[in-house]
Amino acid sequence: MEGGLETERAELCARLFTDASRDGVYSHGLNRFPRFIEMIKRDLIDIHASPKLGGNFGTFERWDGQLGPGNLNAHTSMGRAISLSRQHGIGCVALANTNHWMRGGSYGWQAVEAGFIGICWTSTMPNLPPWGASERRLGNNPLVIAVPRPNGHIVLDMAGSQFSYGTLESYRMRGEQLPVNGGFDLHGELTHDAGAIEASGRPLPIGYWKGSGLALMLDALAALLSAGNATHQIAADSHKEIGPSQVFIAFDLSTIDKNGIAALVTNEIIEYLQTAKSSEDRRVRYSGKRTLEIRKQNLAEGVPVEAQIWEQAQAMLVSDKL
Amino acid sequence: MEGGLETERAELCARLFTDASRDGVYSHGLNRFPRFIEMIKRDLIDIHASPKLGGNFGTFERWDGQLGPGNLNAHTSMGRAISLSRQHGIGCVALANTNHWMRGGSYGWQAVEAGFIGICWTSTMPNLPPWGASERRLGNNPLVIAVPRPNGHIVLDMAGSQFSYGTLESYRMRGEQLPVNGGFDLHGELTHDAGAIEASGRPLPIGYWKGSGLALMLDALAALLSAGNATHQIAADSHKEIGPSQVFIAFDLSTIDKNGIAALVTNEIIEYLQTAKSSEDRRVRYSGKRTLEIRKQNLAEGVPVEAQIWEQAQAMLVSDKL
Repeated sequence: MEGGLETERAELCARLFTDASRDGVYSHGLNRFPRFIEMIKRDLIDIHASPKLGGNFGTFERWDGQLGPGNLNAHTSMGRAISLSRQHGIGCVALANTNHWMRGGSYGWQAVEAGFIGICWTSTMPNLPPWGASERRLGNNPLVIAVPRPNGHIVLDMAGSQFSYGTLESYRMRGEQLPVNGGFDLHGELTHDAGAIEASGRPLPIGYWKGSGLALMLDALAALLSAGNATHQIAADSHKEIGPSQVFIAFDLSTIDKNGIAALVTNEIIEYLQTAKSSEDRRVRYSGKRTLEIRKQNLAEGVPVEAQIWEQAQAMLVSDKL
Repeated sequence: MEGGLETERAELCARLFTDASRDGVYSHGLNRFPRFIEMIKRDLIDIHASPKLGGNFGTFERWDGQLGPGNLNAHTSMGRAISLSRQHGIGCVALANTNHWMRGGSYGWQAVEAGFIGICWTSTMPNLPPWGASERRLGNNPLVIAVPRPNGHIVLDMAGSQFSYGTLESYRMRGEQLPVNGGFDLHGELTHDAGAIEASGRPLPIGYWKGSGLALMLDALAALLSAGNATHQIAADSHKEIGPSQVFIAFDLSTIDKNGIAALVTNEIIEYLQTAKSSEDRRVRYSGKRTLEIRKQNLAEGVPVEAQIWEQAQAMLVSDKL
């Protein structure tokens, strides 16, 4: 692409988008690509910018994302945390002034596929009312925790709201009720009605007051560690979520697990979980299992892409210029 | 106490119990003291044992708690994480074979009162059914995140269940309904009835499937990092929760916040949160605020202690021997 990303960065960027769709995270895969291009065109994302070292404190480093592409910045940062952990067992990178990292799980999978434990989280614009408030003053601050396991990695990729806006939208469009309370309606009552929550703009934090507290802490940690923006400093406009802060932590299992017991323990943990007596119509599933199932299916049958998104992406490629 | 703890350790141990009651965490303050003594008498806690270094990987260390008193082991471990963070910005201690740390928040307050960011969590015995299961196969694995703030530290101390068994009990005894769903009844229906949840033994993880995933990850992390027990290896007997694993992480703010902006940012974060328009009959409160309010009140008016617990404690002191 003329005037676009350098080839290697463009390939990684494209892979991060397509891997998300391949793994069933359509909302932050190709579906998000047109909005990403839109942000580049509006100069909200600087495609030539890479993270710049802001401070080295041993195995903890602070980087400035310089408003570069959020997924490339995040991938670089987890890579750096992994490198640091090779020397010290643990490595940590705090990243300021970045952009939306798209699918957070990408950087967890990045860590476990390299044999490392990965933990990362991001702040977001205010999109979630704290418990006790009717205004959105917290980010949903997605948290990713990933533990390698030869028989299937364990990867949690979790935003701090019970349901994302994307999920609320699809329940409403399917005319289905949410399985549990997802937020408040316009009268301030808890409800299973996705449309009513969209109307009030009041989704619930996970665990009510507990998730509200967790989102607050993740925001404070990301801002303090990166010396970057906290949620209140990130513009509250859904097309202009610029400059969030992120934290990436890696542990080097090859160093700290010389006896190789980690693989046994993780298998035991998952075995114990999966053999629990199931309740009613539900199934017990570990974090990451469904991802691997969808990945397998999509690789065999093709990755579903919405026609409209496909056409938009094709048109962008044909125009050959950002 | 003849045959008891060395004086300095006894003082710290007593302070950790009394500070918990002073701060309103009665369930893990003096109320827990008789059970703690009981575990010592049954040789489940070795009062002479201290953590022993199991592995040094730079700024990440692994320690063996040797089944010593859980609160002393945890206090030592957070202290060590703090020391490590002075050299590297970040410090991490993983502790195996310890005992119940009593009030988890203690070690968060320990960090922030010393000017450090503190993060810690513990595994527990299986006390929480995973989402989709009717059997308890997860720990509620309390997580503590603490960020210093001159105008009132921000400290989250949160177990992975929506309500603790202690809270369920007090709702039942007061004849009150829970404010939100707290678990399943014997028919597998979500309920606000605390007694029905006690009867089924099926409290809810925070955020349903999300908290279930988080509890799983915290268990795997604690076990792998400490090379200690995971939840399935910790005896599922409420009087015999021995050998959990814990992780303590500290960040040295004095090193990474040379410009002193952290205090400003944390004040802004809390100001933004607290000035949110409140909803219905609720109030917006940051994590740790209520603790400081109760502490102030209890220091002024005296710390409430249940008569029965006080008598038990007195009797134990009079017997002067474990």
